[in-house]
Amino acid sequence: MPVHIDLERLRRTLDAVNSVAATEEGGVSRVALTDEDRAGRDLLVRWMQETGLDVRVDDLGTIYGRRKGAEPDLPVVFGSHLDSVPNGGRFDGALGVVAGLEVMRRVSEQDIQTRRPLELVSFTNEEGVRFEPAMMASGVLAGQFTRDYVYSRTDRAGTIFGDELARIGYRGDVEHRLPGAVAFLELHVEQGPVLDTRDYPVAIVEGIQGITWLEVTFTGQADHAGPTPMALRRDAFVAASRLVAFVQEMAKRIGGPAVATTGRCALEPDIINAIPGRAVISVDVRHPDQAGLDEMEAEVHRLAAEAADAEQVEVAVERIWSSPPTSFDSQLIAVLERMATRLGVPYHRMVSGAGHDAKYMAEIAPTVMIFVRSLGGYSHCPEEDSDWQDIEQAVTLLLNSVLQLAT
Amino acid sequence: MPVHIDLERLRRTLDAVNSVAATEEGGVSRVALTDEDRAGRDLLVRWMQETGLDVRVDDLGTIYGRRKGAEPDLPVVFGSHLDSVPNGGRFDGALGVVAGLEVMRRVSEQDIQTRRPLELVSFTNEEGVRFEPAMMASGVLAGQFTRDYVYSRTDRAGTIFGDELARIGYRGDVEHRLPGAVAFLELHVEQGPVLDTRDYPVAIVEGIQGITWLEVTFTGQADHAGPTPMALRRDAFVAASRLVAFVQEMAKRIGGPAVATTGRCALEPDIINAIPGRAVISVDVRHPDQAGLDEMEAEVHRLAAEAADAEQVEVAVERIWSSPPTSFDSQLIAVLERMATRLGVPYHRMVSGAGHDAKYMAEIAPTVMIFVRSLGGYSHCPEEDSDWQDIEQAVTLLLNSVLQLAT
Repeated sequence: MPVHIDLERLRRTLDAVNSVAATEEGGVSRVALTDEDRAGRDLLVRWMQETGLDVRVDDLGTIYGRRKGAEPDLPVVFGSHLDSVPNGGRFDGALGVVAGLEVMRRVSEQDIQTRRPLELVSFTNEEGVRFEPAMMASGVLAGQFTRDYVYSRTDRAGTIFGDELARIGYRGDVEHRLPGAVAFLELHVEQGPVLDTRDYPVAIVEGIQGITWLEVTFTGQADHAGPTPMALRRDAFVAASRLVAFVQEMAKRIGGPAVATTGRCALEPDIINAIPGRAVISVDVRHPDQAGLDEMEAEVHRLAAEAADAEQVEVAVERIWSSPPTSFDSQLIAVLERMATRLGVPYHRMVSGAGHDAKYMAEIAPTVMIFVRSLGGYSHCPEEDSDWQDIEQAVTLLLNSVLQLAT
Repeated sequence: MPVHIDLERLRRTLDAVNSVAATEEGGVSRVALTDEDRAGRDLLVRWMQETGLDVRVDDLGTIYGRRKGAEPDLPVVFGSHLDSVPNGGRFDGALGVVAGLEVMRRVSEQDIQTRRPLELVSFTNEEGVRFEPAMMASGVLAGQFTRDYVYSRTDRAGTIFGDELARIGYRGDVEHRLPGAVAFLELHVEQGPVLDTRDYPVAIVEGIQGITWLEVTFTGQADHAGPTPMALRRDAFVAASRLVAFVQEMAKRIGGPAVATTGRCALEPDIINAIPGRAVISVDVRHPDQAGLDEMEAEVHRLAAEAADAEQVEVAVERIWSSPPTSFDSQLIAVLERMATRLGVPYHRMVSGAGHDAKYMAEIAPTVMIFVRSLGGYSHCPEEDSDWQDIEQAVTLLLNSVLQLAT
C-alpha cells in the first residue's frame, strides 16, 4: 500500500518558508547567507526538531535532519537547497527541501520504522549568485573544492563567505558532514519547458548534461563607419554574428537534448559609427555524453574559423570551463520507474540541462533526481510556477521510493 | 604659371603643432579646449601674425587669419580644425590648417595681390569627442546650434564648454564671426581606404553622405541555457545576428558608396548561461542621396521584421538621428577639376562618408573639399599616415584654386 502525503501541509510549509523572503513582484529573494536565508534556515531547523529529527549543521552550513533506522547503516538521503537567486521563483530548491520534510513528517506520524536511517539535507549556496561557484557545499562533500577555498570567497561588496556563514549562525562542525549515503534523491522543479510541452507531471532524471563554456574572440579592423567601403571592411561583429547563427544551426542539427547558446557579446569600440574591430562572444554547449560534448566543442572551432574566414578576420577560441556529463545510478532510476508505475504516476525520462547538488552527490553516492513540471518552463523569476497536483505526484513518488530504499 | 609650395616648411609646421600634443604611441591628443588645444592654437595665432594676417577669434573660439584683397569683397575661405580625438592621428584636421597657413605664407612671400580677401580658418571642436555634438562651431555659423546651447554643453567631468573656452583664453567676440564667403575649401585626409585602394593621391569631394542612425531592439524570452530545448527558444541575440548579416548584405547589394554598419550591441541578461531575452543593436546607414538613404532605412525595417519572425521574437526599430546628404558646389568642383588637370594632379571624384566642417559651411557658402590619400585608410589612431608627395599635390591644388577664386 503506497503512503500518501498531506498536500495542504506541504503547501503551507512552502508558503511559510517563502513568506520570510517574498518580493513585491511575487518572487522570493533568499540569497545565500543573507538574513532571509537565515530566516528560512531557522524555520527548517524548528520544523525538523518538531518532527523529532536529530538536527546538525556542518562546517559549510549544510543542515541535516536524521531519523534513526533500525540498523546502524548509512542513510537514505534526500533534499535540495533553500537559497534562491535574487527575485527568483517560489519552487526552485525550496520545494525539494519541504518535500523532504513532508516525507519525514509522514514517516514520523505513521510511525514507520525503516531499517536504514533517513536523512533530510538542505545544502548551502546551490545558486552561487552571491558567492561563486555554484553548488558549493555539495562540491566540498565531493572533494571538488576545499573548505579554505570556499571560506575565502567574497561577494561583490567584499564580504567573506566564512565570516558571513558565522554571522548568520550556521558555521557548524566538520564532524557533522554527511558520512556517506546508500542513496541520494533530489526532487526539484524542471526549470525548463520539456515536461510542460510533452505533458508529463514528473520526470525521472537520467543524468546531467556535460557543459563546456567557450569564449570566441574575433579580431578585425576598427574603422570609421562612413569612409570605409563594404568590400574593404574586416568587421569582427559580422563574423561573430555568423557564428551565432552557425551555433544555433549546429545544435538543431545534432538534436535534443544537446543545446548551444551564445549568451554574451562584447564589441570594441562598441560605438554607433565605428566598424567593430573586436567582438567577443560566449558559447555554452551541452550534451549528455562526453564524446558528444567534445564533438560540439570541436565543431565550434570549425564554425568559428569559417565565420572568420568569410570576413577576413582573425579568431581565437578559448575553453574557459567544462563540466563532464553525469549519469545517475541506473539501479535507482529503475527503482523509481517501477515505483512510478506502481503509483500510476506518468513520467518522462530526461537529462537535466542545468546543474544541481545531485551532480556532485553522484560522485559520492548512488543518486537520482525527480523533476516536477515547470509551467511554461519559467524559472529564476517570479513567474516560476508548478501545479500542486503535479507536486503531489512527485512527492508521493519520492516518499515511497525513500521508504523502499530504506527498508 | 602655377605657384608651388614649400613642402619642407609645411612639414616642419605640422610637426611643430603636433609636438605640443604628441602621445607615447606616436599619435596626438589635442582634444578640444584642453591645454594641448590651447598650445596648438597659440602656435597658429603666432604663425598667422608672423605672416602678416589680421587675426581674430569669434565667440565660439574659432580662429580667423585674414589677408586683405584689393576690393572689399567677401573672402575666399579655407581651413579645417586643430582639435583631435584622444591618441588620434597627426593629419586629421591639422593638415588642413597648416596647408592653409602654407597658402598664406606663399602668397605673402610672393607678394601676390588678390582681388578678394583670403581667410584662413581653424574651427573649434570639430571632433565632438569631449563636448558633443561634433562640428560645433561650424554648426553655429550655419544656424544648426545656438550659442547658448553650445556654451552649456558639458564633458564627462561636468566641465562646461563656455567656461573651458574662457579658461584657455579663446572666448572671443561674436562680431568676429565669419561674415560670409564667396567660397569655402577644406583640405583633409580621406580617413578611409578608397584613394589608397584606387591609387589616387587626391580626391575632389562631391559631397557628404546622408547618415541615418537606427536602434533596433529585439525582445524574446530570457531562459536558462541548459533546460530550454532549441525548438522552444525565443533568442533575441540570434535574431539580432540575422539582422547584422542582412544589413551587410543589403549594403553590398546597393553598392558603393552606400555603406551600413552595426557598431553597437547590448544583450540582456548578457551572461554566459542564459538565452538573451533582449538584444539592442545600432544600424548606421549612409547614402549620397536622400531617396537612397530613405530606402535603406525602409529596408532595415523590413529586414528587422524578417529576422524577428525567423526567431519568433518581437522587434522595434527607432530612428535616433539623421543627417541629410550634402552636395558640394558644382562650379567649385569644376574649378578644382580644371586646376588639377592643369597641374597634372591625378584625382578621383568621391563622396565623403564622414562629416566635416565643410558640411555645415556648405549651407552658408559655396563649398568643396580636397581629400589626401590616407595610407591603409587608417584614421583616428597613431597609424594614421599620408605620403608627403600626395600632400604636396593636394596643397598645390588648394593654393592655385584659392588664387584663381580670389582673382
